[in-house]
Amino acid sequence: MAIRYEHIKTCKQTGARLGKLHTPHGVIDTPIFMPVGTLATVKTMSPEELADIGSQIILSNTYHLWLRPGNDIVKEAGGLHKFMNWDKPILTDSGGFQVFSLSHRRKITEEGVHFRSHLDGSKLFLGPEGAMDIQHDLGSDIMMSFDECAAIPSTHDYVKKSVERTTRWADRGLNHHIKKGHDKHQALFGIVQGGEYKDLREQSAKDLVAMDFPGYSIGGLSVGEPKPVMYRVLEETVHLLPEDKPRYLMGIGSPDALIEGVIRGVDMFDCVLPTRIARNGTTMTSQGRVVVKNKIYERDFTPLDPNCDCYTCKNYTRAYLRHLFKANETLGLRLTTYHNLYFLLNLMEDVRTAILNDNLLDFKEAFFESYGLNKENPKNF
Amino acid sequence: MAIRYEHIKTCKQTGARLGKLHTPHGVIDTPIFMPVGTLATVKTMSPEELADIGSQIILSNTYHLWLRPGNDIVKEAGGLHKFMNWDKPILTDSGGFQVFSLSHRRKITEEGVHFRSHLDGSKLFLGPEGAMDIQHDLGSDIMMSFDECAAIPSTHDYVKKSVERTTRWADRGLNHHIKKGHDKHQALFGIVQGGEYKDLREQSAKDLVAMDFPGYSIGGLSVGEPKPVMYRVLEETVHLLPEDKPRYLMGIGSPDALIEGVIRGVDMFDCVLPTRIARNGTTMTSQGRVVVKNKIYERDFTPLDPNCDCYTCKNYTRAYLRHLFKANETLGLRLTTYHNLYFLLNLMEDVRTAILNDNLLDFKEAFFESYGLNKENPKNF
Repeated sequence: MAIRYEHIKTCKQTGARLGKLHTPHGVIDTPIFMPVGTLATVKTMSPEELADIGSQIILSNTYHLWLRPGNDIVKEAGGLHKFMNWDKPILTDSGGFQVFSLSHRRKITEEGVHFRSHLDGSKLFLGPEGAMDIQHDLGSDIMMSFDECAAIPSTHDYVKKSVERTTRWADRGLNHHIKKGHDKHQALFGIVQGGEYKDLREQSAKDLVAMDFPGYSIGGLSVGEPKPVMYRVLEETVHLLPEDKPRYLMGIGSPDALIEGVIRGVDMFDCVLPTRIARNGTTMTSQGRVVVKNKIYERDFTPLDPNCDCYTCKNYTRAYLRHLFKANETLGLRLTTYHNLYFLLNLMEDVRTAILNDNLLDFKEAFFESYGLNKENPKNF
Repeated sequence: MAIRYEHIKTCKQTGARLGKLHTPHGVIDTPIFMPVGTLATVKTMSPEELADIGSQIILSNTYHLWLRPGNDIVKEAGGLHKFMNWDKPILTDSGGFQVFSLSHRRKITEEGVHFRSHLDGSKLFLGPEGAMDIQHDLGSDIMMSFDECAAIPSTHDYVKKSVERTTRWADRGLNHHIKKGHDKHQALFGIVQGGEYKDLREQSAKDLVAMDFPGYSIGGLSVGEPKPVMYRVLEETVHLLPEDKPRYLMGIGSPDALIEGVIRGVDMFDCVLPTRIARNGTTMTSQGRVVVKNKIYERDFTPLDPNCDCYTCKNYTRAYLRHLFKANETLGLRLTTYHNLYFLLNLMEDVRTAILNDNLLDFKEAFFESYGLNKENPKNF
């Protein structure tokens, strides 16, 4: 097996899991948040900075690297780790999500998906075997099965057909993966789908667990549904997954959802949220959201987050950050991205400590209060 | 006096000067190239990275900081050093160059210049005293007199009137500077103008030297004239300047012109060239210019410059850099900027060593050959 999940402890207050995930490029402490490096770079950050803030694993996107620079080029470079100068673990998605969210004029067949490139409109095809081949070229430590992420809401009938096809695709991908001999050093996860339907989530989980993947993802959430729906689906799904395998909730990066996900038994998360909002001048702080590009910070010579000890907060003021954003200076994007990622990675470290101390519920309450999430209509992510 | 120039050695082969410039924020080895941080940031770089590559002093632009964020805000922040987290020396220009090159509908009077902001068209005025006040607020170690940089070619009559006004402005600025008591910790340079006219350069230099500035700049060059004209004007000007004061040639950053300038007795240089071309995917290497975003580097898995030991060249390939540029990724700009600045700072270190070894002419010949500058029609900057 390419990876191994080591369970360390269960939080007595919440049931959250503390663990270690052993991968070909090192050991990850879980639960963990994974910064997203779509195009073989976490936008604005150097690999050394990522390591400095405690990134243990990053995510990169199969679809984007397939199109640019091309998986053949990454393979020739010696794989994604070497290409981008990152020697810790990498997880890649399958390209499925982008095929369905970014491409034009797509047509789903049993074989796979025909669609047009979002870059130049050229005709492309991606199916479960192709998604494996690309990820083999990239050489990621953890790979994803090719899946369809159905919208919420979709009809039960549509989601049922979609889930059953996604399961057949997972089976084909797994067979191809094993046949190519990559299962020894790259771990392929199955992705549980099923929208908001309990019976379909159960069917998806049951069928995938029977295939014995080394880890399981929960997909099709955080696609616009209210958070209570997401939490309900999580509760209906996670307990169906094996306890000795890692569980990855795809596309989640708001502080509240990370904590709620951990409480419901999730080990791994990723999201573009912290890096995307950072580039728009919006930051996560111990007191909630700070839109540092706003005029009120023009003469604010205090740190972005007075309780933060990251590089940005130790060396720069809100006034300087605002100036950089108003002047369209790259360093502004760097400094807010650095802080936001540090904030989430640090939050997950605190969460791991709380599990160890059996007080994750207390931690959650204190954090929600400080972050402003207990207010009516909180807008603090 | 705020600064002191210590002459160490004259190159027996060329007459180039090796020295040390003592400033309120530390000692600078000369000759030196100064990276440009227009808006209180050297574009894409952190202060720590600037220090890592050997930046001893940076330049920042009075005009730009006056407009954004405003010199009052920088002053409130504790000055430019503190605002931007840079504790080594800073040189600021006077704003004169930008007033004449960027602004709209300008009208020159004896008092100063009336013009419209390049950002929002608002009416502005800048004169020699105002240029001092802004630089006092910024707190730069080295300040520039307010001057007019006349175009080449301009008529002798125009340049004569311009030079004489610039001299009167220099005198007014110096008096204001001393009256405000800032001459103890901020060194104000006079700027020699005079276009391509020997007699006007002589007049400008003579009048400014009589005012006993702690250093002298040579302005009005690198404004489109052929390099032989620039070198001739330098030869006609530098020998008029006092040997015990630093000499700064404004706006020069191509490797050949840096070396030729040093040979003609210049101590300090600045230019946006290395950082500007870097952001366009163009780099300076030991073998000449490499436009790394070009398709020929798509599968080139060698370093940008095989003879360079900078962070970029030690860790990344041309193929990766090209990918980052094609994908509009910020890290690409960071890595090429880092390399180009390292290249020029390293070049100046080699130049200082050559002066010490009395072989700067030999060094120049070898460098020009390797860089491709001895070819017919060299296009290697």
